[in-house]
Order: sequence, then C-alpha cells, then structure tokens
Amino acid sequence: MTVHAGPSAPAATTETVTTAFAAHPRATTDPAARAAAATDRSGYEPPTPPDAVVHAESVDDVVQAVRLAHEHGIPLVPRGAGTGLAAGSSAHRGQVVVDVSRMNRILQIDPVEMIAVVEPGVLNAEVNAAVREHGLFYAPDPASTAICSIGGNIATNAGGMWCAKYGVTRESVLGLRVVLADGTVLTTGRRTIKGVTGYDLNALFIGSEGTLGIVVEATLRLRPRPVRTETLAAYFDDVETAGRAASAITAARIQPSILELMDGPTLEAVDRAGGTRHRELGGAFLLAQTDGYGAHLELDAITTAITPFASHVHRAADDAEAAALVTARRDAIPALEQLGRVSIGDIAVPRNRLADAFAGLEEIAARTGVRIFSVAHAADGNLHPMIVVEPDESITEGPAKAALGEMFHLAQRLGGTLTGEHGVGLLKRQWVGEELGETSLALQRAIKSAFDPADILNPGKAI
Amino acid sequence: MTVHAGPSAPAATTETVTTAFAAHPRATTDPAARAAAATDRSGYEPPTPPDAVVHAESVDDVVQAVRLAHEHGIPLVPRGAGTGLAAGSSAHRGQVVVDVSRMNRILQIDPVEMIAVVEPGVLNAEVNAAVREHGLFYAPDPASTAICSIGGNIATNAGGMWCAKYGVTRESVLGLRVVLADGTVLTTGRRTIKGVTGYDLNALFIGSEGTLGIVVEATLRLRPRPVRTETLAAYFDDVETAGRAASAITAARIQPSILELMDGPTLEAVDRAGGTRHRELGGAFLLAQTDGYGAHLELDAITTAITPFASHVHRAADDAEAAALVTARRDAIPALEQLGRVSIGDIAVPRNRLADAFAGLEEIAARTGVRIFSVAHAADGNLHPMIVVEPDESITEGPAKAALGEMFHLAQRLGGTLTGEHGVGLLKRQWVGEELGETSLALQRAIKSAFDPADILNPGKAI
Repeated sequence: MTVHAGPSAPAATTETVTTAFAAHPRATTDPAARAAAATDRSGYEPPTPPDAVVHAESVDDVVQAVRLAHEHGIPLVPRGAGTGLAAGSSAHRGQVVVDVSRMNRILQIDPVEMIAVVEPGVLNAEVNAAVREHGLFYAPDPASTAICSIGGNIATNAGGMWCAKYGVTRESVLGLRVVLADGTVLTTGRRTIKGVTGYDLNALFIGSEGTLGIVVEATLRLRPRPVRTETLAAYFDDVETAGRAASAITAARIQPSILELMDGPTLEAVDRAGGTRHRELGGAFLLAQTDGYGAHLELDAITTAITPFASHVHRAADDAEAAALVTARRDAIPALEQLGRVSIGDIAVPRNRLADAFAGLEEIAARTGVRIFSVAHAADGNLHPMIVVEPDESITEGPAKAALGEMFHLAQRLGGTLTGEHGVGLLKRQWVGEELGETSLALQRAIKSAFDPADILNPGKAI
Repeated sequence: MTVHAGPSAPAATTETVTTAFAAHPRATTDPAARAAAATDRSGYEPPTPPDAVVHAESVDDVVQAVRLAHEHGIPLVPRGAGTGLAAGSSAHRGQVVVDVSRMNRILQIDPVEMIAVVEPGVLNAEVNAAVREHGLFYAPDPASTAICSIGGNIATNAGGMWCAKYGVTRESVLGLRVVLADGTVLTTGRRTIKGVTGYDLNALFIGSEGTLGIVVEATLRLRPRPVRTETLAAYFDDVETAGRAASAITAARIQPSILELMDGPTLEAVDRAGGTRHRELGGAFLLAQTDGYGAHLELDAITTAITPFASHVHRAADDAEAAALVTARRDAIPALEQLGRVSIGDIAVPRNRLADAFAGLEEIAARTGVRIFSVAHAADGNLHPMIVVEPDESITEGPAKAALGEMFHLAQRLGGTLTGEHGVGLLKRQWVGEELGETSLALQRAIKSAFDPADILNPGKAI
C-alpha cells in the first residue's frame, strides 16, 4: 500500500515558485515558515516542505496568490489552523501554502437575524465566545474547537458533539465567498434560511477540502442557546454494552443534544491525563446531554432507556459538573497523545451497528497488533478509533496503516463510510474509489475539472 | 418580458421522437396522456403538448428512456405528481415526459435506523402514513403533502411548515439513486447520518429540478415523532404587526416547530372555503406550534413574546383543535383557487424583514392593480404572496407577470431570494442571473455541461 502523495501530484519547480511568488507581498520562503506549514495534526510527514508560504491577510492577498499560481501552473495548498487529521493541508516541494490563519476577523454579528459573517481563520471557539452574549451559539463543535478554524471546518464539513441534534457544518453555513482557481471571487448561498435559486454550490464547496476554491468568508447560521441543558454520565461493563445502550436511546425516539461514548482504554488515558477516576466506575462511558425547555424530562427518558444496560448512572448536579464531563470527552485525543503517536480514524456506521463496530475494532486490534482506543459520536454512528504507536513508529506505513485500511473495510461491511467528519485528505484517498464507485468518482473528477482545469487547488487530495 | 421557453429550449422533431420511442414499452403518444403531462399546477400553459409520455414503472424503464433520448438527442422532462408551482415539469412539442408517478413503492422502512427507502413517485403523505406506526415522521411537509411526490420534493428541495425546526428536503435525504444523462445509474450519499467522502453530489441533485439526472430512489432520514406538541393561534390588527410578532419570537431565542402567518384577505378566503370565522378575530393570523418534552413551556414563552402585539391569542385545547388550525393554513391555496387563477410567489427574506416584505407586497398590489394574498413560513422568512387574477386572465403575462418581477426585486432589496422552496422552473428563470451573478451562473452551467453535455435533461429550466 502506498500513500498517493508527492510524485503523482502536480508540482512546479522550486525556481518557478520562487520567481513567481517574489511578487507577492505576503509570501515567504523562510525555512521555518515552510516547515511549520508542511503538515497538520494527522502525524503525516511530507518528504519535503513546500517552497513558499503566503500568509494572507485579505481577500486580495488570496486572489493575488491564486492568480500567480494560475499564471505559472503552481499548485496551491490552502491552510487554516493546521489541525486537520487527514493530511488535507500537507504540502511538499513544488507547492505553495496559502495560509489564511491571519484572516481572523469576525466581520459582523447580526443577533436579530442570528447570523455571523467571519473570515476563514477565525477559530471555532472564538465564534462561540463572541456570540454567547447574544444568547446564541454556533453548533458545529469539533473536539478541537479551541484550536481549529472555521475555514478548516468548512473544508472538511466538520461535525462535533452537538451535531447529534443540530447537524454538521453544512447545516450551519448559509453562504460563502470563495476564490476560484482563476482568481475570480464567487459568492455562494445567501443570508436567508431558505433558498433554492440555482444549484447548491454552497454544499458543493463544504467538505471539498480546498480542491474547488479557497474560502475567504463565511456567513454562519447561529442558533438560540438552549434555555436549559441536563447532563449524565453512564458507565458500562464493556464497550459493546455501551453501544447497545446508545442504540436503545435512538430506538426510544429520544433526541439527545450530545451522546458520546468512550471505551475503557480511553477512559484510563483520560483519567491519567486529567486526574479523574472514570475507569473505576466501568469499562465504558456514555455522556448524554439534552437541551431545551423539557431537557430534564428528556434526560429522564434517556435514564430509563439505558438503565437496563448500565452499571452506574450519574446525573450531573450542576453546570460545573456537566462541563467537567464534557471536558473529559473533549480531552480524549490530547490524553492519548501523551501515550505515543496517534492516528485518528473517523468511520461512520448505521447507528444500530455501533456495538458491531466496537467488536470489529477489537478484532482488528488483536489481529494487527496495534493498540486501538475508541470514542464515538454515538447518536450519529460516527466512531473515532485511535491507533496509538510508539513515538518512533510510523502511523502512515506498516501496521498502523494496515489497521486503518481494515477499519475502512469494517465500516464498509457494516454499511458505513470511510470518513464521517475529518475528510479524506491524503491519508484516506486510496479507499475513496472503493467507497464511491467509478461512476461517482468520474462525475466528481468532472466537477473538479470544471472548477479547476489546471488542477492547481490542493491537487492529490480528497478525490 | 418574455418567458424563456419553447423556442430557445432544445427540441427534437416529432417524427424523431415518435420513431425512437416506439421502441419503449411504457411510452405513449396518446393525446390525452400528452395533454395531461404538459404542465403542473403553476398555471403555465405550454404552446404545444409533449410528443410522448413514458409512464415508467421501474428503474430500467427510466434508463431505457434516457438511453433513447441520449442516442437520438431528444430532450426529456422528468415528472412526478405534477404539483410543481414554477412550470418545472412543463413540456412541449419535441420533448418527451418521463413520468415516474407509477414508481410509487416504499421499498424499505428501517425503524431502528430511522430511514425509509422509497421510489420517487411515492406521495409525501404516504411516507408519513407508513412510518407513523413506528413513532417516526418525515419532516419536509409542503402544503401539498397529500398530492405531491418525494421525487418532486427532491427536485425543488421542498420545505413546508415543519422545516422551521427540522430543515428542508436536503436535511432529510441521505442518499439517492439517479439515472444520469447517458443512462448510467449513479448512487449518491449513504445510509449513515454523517459522511464526507467525496463531494456532496447528493446536495447537488437536490433542488436541481431534474436538470442533472432523474431520481429513481431516495433514502430518507426519518425523525422521532415529538412526544408532545402544543399549538396556538394569534390574531393581529394587520399583517405588519403579525410580522413583527413573528420576528419577536425569533428574537426571544425560541424555536417553534411551526410558525405560519396569513394575512387578512387570505383569512377571508379560508373562512369562505372552510366555514370558519378567523377573519372576525383579526386582520392577520399567526399559527405557532412547539414540540418536544417542554412543548408547553416553550409555547408559554411564545405567548409572552407575542402578547404585546396580538389582539387575541387562542391556545388549542386538544389535538383536534390544533389539527384544525394547521388545516386552515394548509388549505389557503385551495381556498384562493376558488377565487380565480392563482400565481404563487415564493420569495424568502431575512427573518427580521418580514414586516417590510408585507408592506412592500401591499405597495406592489396597489401599484400594479393585482390582488395579492399572502401567507408565510414566518420562522424561515419564506413568503408565498399569491397573485389572484380572473379565470380568463393570464398569470404568466401582463400585470401578474409584472407583479412577480416586482416581488423578486422586493426580495432582492431586502437581502432575500427569488425562491425559497418552489424552485425556478420555467417561470422564474429570467431573474436567476440577476440573483446569482455571472460568475455563479457560469459555474452552474459548467456543472450542467459536465453532467449533461447534450442538454437533454429538462432543458431550459432552473438555471
């Protein structure tokens, strides 16, 4: 198995890049800047760094970069906060990174209309901090909320915990401004909640991982902060039982706002990192939150649904305790990163196959000999099995890579998908054709050609 | 102003059509069948009927029709239940209608996973009737639910009352099977709630009005039926005040599941058709419904928000009374159809501009001399201003047409859109470029060319 990387992707010569981008006021060829922009948090290490980095501060900076690339046939790699988990923003020699992290202004908050207009480099958590005083929130909340940017969220159609009830990024982005492959600026979508004039270009850009255009502005849909939330933590003997409990909530026709699952090994890591003692209470953990005027009644219904499965159920007494439980889940990835190098899977399966997915993951771990820690957005059937290897081991080759492939085939057998919310990037690209089929892939390539005939926008990624 | 119709759209000769489709076992050239398939409920009358109609009963029937069309360069017009309001399924000489209304089976209901797999000819209300026993519902509910089909709902990205809370068709369709312009069958989307492998072709087909492919199967996302709903009717002196009350609900951070507004003239028509007496209670009407475990508390909050504006607030005592109020709103269009020929507008504006939109519509009615009756999905800012003319007057030419254009420009001035949920079809096509701009339109045409290079799928519609 080989990663479809470097050599197959278009590249310009370093001399072409250096000469062309000397004209760009925000471009740098400083080695430290190039090294810092070479990859993301996936653990992938490109063979060489990119030849230049443009630290864009305005739409014009991006337009100028794209025009130079268009004119000279230079591949561009858009980059936000660099927190991606699939090497979607990795770049190598012959490529130029367009870093939009300095385009980080919130341009407008309209509390009456419940929208915010932001630049792509704004961090996810910054949006929520800014709109909170208006009684609003922005629903997509990746675990990386404190460090990931809205542009990257759009590139991957990011999810998070709240999307169990409120949908993913696609459902919270009303409009975009995008710099196309020839430097033209396109506006998609609208400021209204509904609208069907023309094809849904907005949805087409969301999740396209920077291969169709570079997002330079987004109009976000905000939602009313719930008047109340109620939270519980439940503990189970093992992860399959926890998976069955999660399915029982779905079957009971309850709509939690958060439903998160962690397996025993992950709990141990969280306890070790955070000084908590969750693992003592069970071999798997389910975090459930309800919101709205009847949150307390809905949490009662969840309690009833899961009690036959649980060894221990604990209802949070107050907001502080609820926040601590949410933090425990949010900190799972950093906790595991203390144990070694982490490769984060992202399969999604039908919601009633969660227990089967966990059983399959245990079987993969046993067979391939890698350690797999699992958390899941249980209400969506979206699992994040995390492969942890020693600090000096590769996570893109060898057993870790093999386990990633097995996870995909497990998801496929269960009627699921390769990636629920992290994107394909570079690291999962080899399985895309198998999931989508030739007809779909051919159409997707036709769209890519229509938008970017010279293949200069994040080539070799996503499709 | 001319409708961009007939002559500019591709057409084959009648002889070519008749000869080619003689080979199709479900094709007919019967004049009655052709006349019946010539238009929809928009009021538009094509100059000539189509040359043939294929009454498809299977995917293979559709594939065979598309292959014949592909081979002989014959334009096809996909058709579901024919309840469209923008002449999206109108057809004329030189064209063949592919009617999928006989493909009306519910193929699968998975109550655990909360999905249904259906053929495109299944009626919207039939889906809801079938899933009700499992404690589930399908959220998009156009006023025409009893007579409109899922295929048509997908073609227009249909909304309805419940989409205030649950989103439009795009948010409730997980996957599609589509016959492409060369007869290939494509599968889009998935059976899981989340998934980001590849571009969002699913969203691209939804709302594309049959111009990119013919939908032959859909995997629908179902939702838990709310444990309780609460309903009220509020009456106001005039429609601007009702609009301000609706905006006050949004501003109070409340999320109704239904929020519908009717103006005084519409109330009179509803009263006349249904024997009710709403108009006596006020000059405008707001229907609000909440759902979920705290529905009663959330309706209390709505009552508090609107009381400063309302002349009368009435809370439904039981389900029967609530249903009667919903029916009053649902029957507005049929009630107006008793008064003359009706052309139904579909503009959407930012939610806090509702009152401005109503004021603008009154001004348009006064200036153009047409009668305009208005209802609105108030929580979405989606208005349906209905122009009613005498039975012998045209609704696609003259003052009615002029008023439709003025409505679009009103929406545009308020930051809104030409069509919220009914689609562009034939009748609104002339304003599409003005709304989208040249860059967007060029990209949309590039997509159309990539999917349908010979322009045989519903040519002259949508974009």
